[in-house]
Amino acid sequence: MAGYTFVKFDLDKTLETMQKADVRYLCIKDFHLPLKSNEDEIAAFHAKLASKGVKGYAVGPIYMRSEAEIDNAFQYAKRVGVNMIVGVPDYELLPYVEKKVKEYGFHYAIHLHGPDMPLYPDADDVWNNVKNLDPRIGICLDIGHDTRNGKNPVKDLKKYHSRVFDIHIKDVTGTTKAGYSVEIGRGVIDIPAFVKMLRKVGYTGVCSLEHERNMDDPFMGIAESIGYFRGVIAATQK
Amino acid sequence: MAGYTFVKFDLDKTLETMQKADVRYLCIKDFHLPLKSNEDEIAAFHAKLASKGVKGYAVGPIYMRSEAEIDNAFQYAKRVGVNMIVGVPDYELLPYVEKKVKEYGFHYAIHLHGPDMPLYPDADDVWNNVKNLDPRIGICLDIGHDTRNGKNPVKDLKKYHSRVFDIHIKDVTGTTKAGYSVEIGRGVIDIPAFVKMLRKVGYTGVCSLEHERNMDDPFMGIAESIGYFRGVIAATQK
Repeated sequence: MAGYTFVKFDLDKTLETMQKADVRYLCIKDFHLPLKSNEDEIAAFHAKLASKGVKGYAVGPIYMRSEAEIDNAFQYAKRVGVNMIVGVPDYELLPYVEKKVKEYGFHYAIHLHGPDMPLYPDADDVWNNVKNLDPRIGICLDIGHDTRNGKNPVKDLKKYHSRVFDIHIKDVTGTTKAGYSVEIGRGVIDIPAFVKMLRKVGYTGVCSLEHERNMDDPFMGIAESIGYFRGVIAATQK
Repeated sequence: MAGYTFVKFDLDKTLETMQKADVRYLCIKDFHLPLKSNEDEIAAFHAKLASKGVKGYAVGPIYMRSEAEIDNAFQYAKRVGVNMIVGVPDYELLPYVEKKVKEYGFHYAIHLHGPDMPLYPDADDVWNNVKNLDPRIGICLDIGHDTRNGKNPVKDLKKYHSRVFDIHIKDVTGTTKAGYSVEIGRGVIDIPAFVKMLRKVGYTGVCSLEHERNMDDPFMGIAESIGYFRGVIAATQK
């Protein structure tokens, strides 16, 4: 589960909802665990997650607009005890990100955000910016935003899977900026084809639901989306 | 959607939930529309459903322990304007049910209820009791209860599809009376195989979710189950 799904809810409600939907992995957002958290606060956070059967598998997305913010994010990830950061660094900071990746040994997945922002609109853009950097710098493939930028996430997964380290699953109503997030299965993304491609390329990372509809009352939408994705997984097993 | 899912909720909450899950067909239970309802009350009921994009496609399950109760149920179904009753008649009343089916031209789907009740534990039992009756008397195949009676609903759908007029979808944790209802996908029923069999036999009826878990707070479970079933449908399309 992408933490952003619960931008309007505290950690307790987040974990209650994840437990109801039987989801076990959380990408940790700063509004649930601030970047300035100390080791005691982080230990308490992990203990609370563990009490609900949930594990934090990465942090982010974290926007990084300076070397100091990059330093801060890597130190935070190390304190949190994960080895992957989902990040959005300004383009000119990529060489500094690479330096930090080599220093920490972390994976760094750049979140793409469709036509809404100038930074990293789609998987092509991330790929072109990272292909010559350390192979631990790659993509958090947001299949909704990729689609909203006119791209095909199934094809992009096939092309770029060697650098896809995290995936945000969702569905959207269209292939342009006007397309908006809906429950998985109600939009235009070919989820069965995407799941088949996950198997074909041997993806071993997490698929995190980033649910961005009815964010004041997202609970049934979250459950429907999780159910749909699981149904597709079950039905495409050999 | 099987109305029983909302045994603890009024019609407004039922319709709100169906709308959120984008479910359009309701099997009407008596606690939402009593059997004694007059034509004005029935018209108001249909208007309320229509305002939420929902259509009542059948009534029941209705237990029928006497000829008078059968008369009452058929008159009710006629007033409601549906042509299918999901019913549970005492065995010795089946000839009277047949008489009424011929008189009204309705389909009559007998709900099976697993090992909890002596009446109609599984699809074999319904089939054996109706196979020599009018072909409009058949089965409401509850795939959970069939499983809980040690039977395989995929095989039973294949064997008995000519008399399967309605289906209650759900999942259960085991193949005995100890098995209990869970969100679709979390139990032991092979949902992909079931959906494939629906296609193979050319089933044209409704698959109604009868959700029987956390009935005080079933909403996320309903959505997850609906999502899962839709995901399987999408992934098994040719």
